[in-house]
Amino acid sequence: MKTNTTKHWLYVTIFGTHTKAGRIFDISLIVAIITSLVVLVLGTIEPYASRYQTELALIEYLFTALFTIEYLLRLYCSPKPAAYAKSFYGVVDLLAILPTYLQLIVPNAHFAVIIRLLRVMRIFRVLKLVQYLKDSNMLMRSLFMARRKILIFFSMVAILVTIFGATLYVIEGPDNGFTSIPMSIYWAIVTITTVGYGDIYPVTALGKAVAALVMLLGYSILAVPTGIITAEMNQEMSAHRTLVKCPNCAKTGHENDALHCKHCGSELATPSERVVNPDED
Amino acid sequence: MKTNTTKHWLYVTIFGTHTKAGRIFDISLIVAIITSLVVLVLGTIEPYASRYQTELALIEYLFTALFTIEYLLRLYCSPKPAAYAKSFYGVVDLLAILPTYLQLIVPNAHFAVIIRLLRVMRIFRVLKLVQYLKDSNMLMRSLFMARRKILIFFSMVAILVTIFGATLYVIEGPDNGFTSIPMSIYWAIVTITTVGYGDIYPVTALGKAVAALVMLLGYSILAVPTGIITAEMNQEMSAHRTLVKCPNCAKTGHENDALHCKHCGSELATPSERVVNPDED
Amino acid sequence: MKTNTTKHWLYVTIFGTHTKAGRIFDISLIVAIITSLVVLVLGTIEPYASRYQTELALIEYLFTALFTIEYLLRLYCSPKPAAYAKSFYGVVDLLAILPTYLQLIVPNAHFAVIIRLLRVMRIFRVLKLVQYLKDSNMLMRSLFMARRKILIFFSMVAILVTIFGATLYVIEGPDNGFTSIPMSIYWAIVTITTVGYGDIYPVTALGKAVAALVMLLGYSILAVPTGIITAEMNQEMSAHRTLVKCPNCAKTGHENDALHCKHCGSELATPSERVVNPDED
Amino acid sequence: MKTNTTKHWLYVTIFGTHTKAGRIFDISLIVAIITSLVVLVLGTIEPYASRYQTELALIEYLFTALFTIEYLLRLYCSPKPAAYAKSFYGVVDLLAILPTYLQLIVPNAHFAVIIRLLRVMRIFRVLKLVQYLKDSNMLMRSLFMARRKILIFFSMVAILVTIFGATLYVIEGPDNGFTSIPMSIYWAIVTITTVGYGDIYPVTALGKAVAALVMLLGYSILAVPTGIITAEMNQEMSAHRTLVKCPNCAKTGHENDALHCKHCGSELATPSERVVNPDED
Repeated sequence: MKTNTTKHWLYVTIFGTHTKAGRIFDISLIVAIITSLVVLVLGTIEPYASRYQTELALIEYLFTALFTIEYLLRLYCSPKPAAYAKSFYGVVDLLAILPTYLQLIVPNAHFAVIIRLLRVMRIFRVLKLVQYLKDSNMLMRSLFMARRKILIFFSMVAILVTIFGATLYVIEGPDNGFTSIPMSIYWAIVTITTVGYGDIYPVTALGKAVAALVMLLGYSILAVPTGIITAEMNQEMSAHRTLVKCPNCAKTGHENDALHCKHCGSELATPSERVVNPDED
Repeated sequence: MKTNTTKHWLYVTIFGTHTKAGRIFDISLIVAIITSLVVLVLGTIEPYASRYQTELALIEYLFTALFTIEYLLRLYCSPKPAAYAKSFYGVVDLLAILPTYLQLIVPNAHFAVIIRLLRVMRIFRVLKLVQYLKDSNMLMRSLFMARRKILIFFSMVAILVTIFGATLYVIEGPDNGFTSIPMSIYWAIVTITTVGYGDIYPVTALGKAVAALVMLLGYSILAVPTGIITAEMNQEMSAHRTLVKCPNCAKTGHENDALHCKHCGSELATPSERVVNPDED
Repeated sequence: MKTNTTKHWLYVTIFGTHTKAGRIFDISLIVAIITSLVVLVLGTIEPYASRYQTELALIEYLFTALFTIEYLLRLYCSPKPAAYAKSFYGVVDLLAILPTYLQLIVPNAHFAVIIRLLRVMRIFRVLKLVQYLKDSNMLMRSLFMARRKILIFFSMVAILVTIFGATLYVIEGPDNGFTSIPMSIYWAIVTITTVGYGDIYPVTALGKAVAALVMLLGYSILAVPTGIITAEMNQEMSAHRTLVKCPNCAKTGHENDALHCKHCGSELATPSERVVNPDED
Repeated sequence: MKTNTTKHWLYVTIFGTHTKAGRIFDISLIVAIITSLVVLVLGTIEPYASRYQTELALIEYLFTALFTIEYLLRLYCSPKPAAYAKSFYGVVDLLAILPTYLQLIVPNAHFAVIIRLLRVMRIFRVLKLVQYLKDSNMLMRSLFMARRKILIFFSMVAILVTIFGATLYVIEGPDNGFTSIPMSIYWAIVTITTVGYGDIYPVTALGKAVAALVMLLGYSILAVPTGIITAEMNQEMSAHRTLVKCPNCAKTGHENDALHCKHCGSELATPSERVVNPDED
């Protein structure tokens, strides 16, 4: 069946990254996404936006046409079109083309800017490609392993900024820019993260003293997420896990010096037999 | 004795977190605390505060009633009511309800805001729950182990900001915003923590040069607390490995999720059987 | 010889920290130094400075008298008075009392503020005490071990801020606040250390683009000193060096599992014989 | 052949750093480069620039003459003059002298400033010298090893600032300073790197909420490059240990400054005999 072969070839090329054609397609797609984003971005800079309105609109239609063809091809060659359409990337792909069509029906300047923004989400495809890189995997795994610790850390930060924000609201009051508790919490976040815009800052002596405390606290708790992620990365690096797969239960994540699977106890390939640096995926 | 059983059940539910009912109670309590805080926060935003004054006051009374019932139940079911009432959380629980009752007797707009603020301290109960999580324990223990080093570090920072603050006060003087040494110390803290509001900054060439030195110093001493906490976490993490010993080959150094010895393949004690947190209170 | 015994007792008390009297003296001295500094600091805040001028001057004379007695006692009981007078702390101790006497001869408001500032240097005595703490030693040793790496790092930062400062000077020019290359280097330091006062910032599009590059660079090189110090601390912590002393060459800094001195090869006390946690110095 | 010997001596002195004469030449050169840069920098500060115009121009010509002689000597003594002229440092050396000659032909105030700036690049020679230091090598190798991870990290940051920049552009709009998407991306970079100039900041409540999210995100992803570099440095530092092997008991893991085996006390190869930097170029 020739159709099937073509369909499969399309599937491997469009969805996969292991064939040469697949890689060419992915790189072309990324170039197209970034170019369309650059055009979108340039279209917000005055006076260029007004002067080249027609040209920018034309390029916009061209990219929409290209992404529409790509979307239809993805639907066609996917073994489960409905599953693809409902998946995260399926929705993102649709959202990348829908705005331009909607704009033809509902012309509205401000609304157009918002819906065009959705195109930005397409850039996540670039992230998807990045996932195939080994180093990226390590970064992601470190962040994933540390997810609970980071969550706890953010809960603590949330409590601290609430308490300090409310304290400054009471000390400084609406006259010095601390107009409400949410505004004061915003100030506390700006301060504890050491951003310090300078749009709101304490004016009274007591307010300055509490602010100094918040800063020094922020300064030292800044160390906590760094410590979490560094420690996870150290673990990941020294262990060099995930390289070996158990022949029995197929689970990975074994350390380099492991002789038996830590999940089922089966013997693993000896370290010398293992592919130490499997850079070719 | 039925009373005792009910009392014990109440105690386990309200104070404990190990039964299903206890967990439901804790989660409901946290939801109630956060909701009451959100209402408190919304009540400071104009023009909503004025417009919905009656509604917000009603919700405030409702939560006060709820927390009063909770406080009385805690006093009733606690084996040592006096000890509870005098404990940190006992005082916090009382402070959470007292302000609203005080407000009925002493109606005063500004005073009301300050006493309402005490409600925020109740959020520490959330922290208490967080303590039961293993990862939180690790974070806390790392911070606890590093407490002396962090104290020494802050002493050094205190000396540095005093010296640099006084130096800038002499160089810049009151005309450039450095009105007093405490104000200049505030500037030094804002600078060394890299917050940099921009409300006070050096104007003279010499002041700018010293400020640049303060910044670079701050930049590099920012590394010290990070180093302290990261090193402690690394110690904690590698310590977690050595807890389990293989019953067959007696080798240690297994990871926390290991079920089989990585050296000989023997079954290890399951994670639930292990003493995960040997210093549990 | 009774004089000698008194002299020796004074020496041990004033210069040493190992006897109880010595510790009491040191703590009293620190309290006196900090109190005199607090008075000095309060004396710069208007309108208190003008209102309590007489009281503040009196307290100043009292502390000067106390520190003069202390200085004379140190000279008297020191085995080598000349060596003490020429040492760093000897000069600092003299500078702490000299300004007030000078002020009696040369009354000058602004000059007085500058000379009074020298009192701040006395706070280094506090640091001296801090040195006796074990954890402080570890921090200091980590910083000392990393001194060359930190120096190289600052050389790189110096080169980067020169290049970026000069670049922004050419791009933005004197009209946008970048009045000279030193001013632009100041901007580069404010930016790369993420302080960001907002007194000078790029206005042109190209300037903003280069500034964004400087920020991202600063963001990632911020990691370098942290990495240096954390790695040194990790080494210090895992090795737990300095505990054991070689019986032959008296050098310390051996690792916990060392059986022989790494400097002269002599046998060391076996790990079990060693005082593992010699908290008492 | 005397010429050859002189040529070789010149080559070893000018290009090498291993002889005493070579080190003296390098240090003199660095002093000359830094002095010429200081003169260049001072020449941009008004009113000195106008007042000492003749003196500064004279010093400029003197240094240009010196660097011209150096450039010609480098061309003369280099075994492959063409290769040197085309190399990175060859081009930098030429660019350091060319501007002054060009200025004689094309006198133009603003153009002069830009071309003079190229002199700054000469400072890279200092970096070249720094490379010979062992600690610098370790820093560089850590950064080199982490280059792929840092690249992936910056790709993620680029995507995040694009998404958040575009979001704030839509929320705040041109009236609140977010005039275009590139301007909003600039704001996102200023915020995520915690610089926070305060030239652009969110004004609306929704904008402030999203900005708070950006800050907290920036706060925690600040940890990622630190984690990467620290983990690499840890690896480098522990790797440095395993290089030396005891000739008697064949055990490794000795520290860099160890003269005797810590296990059996045998003498180790002295640090100078060891291959300190096995990948020297």
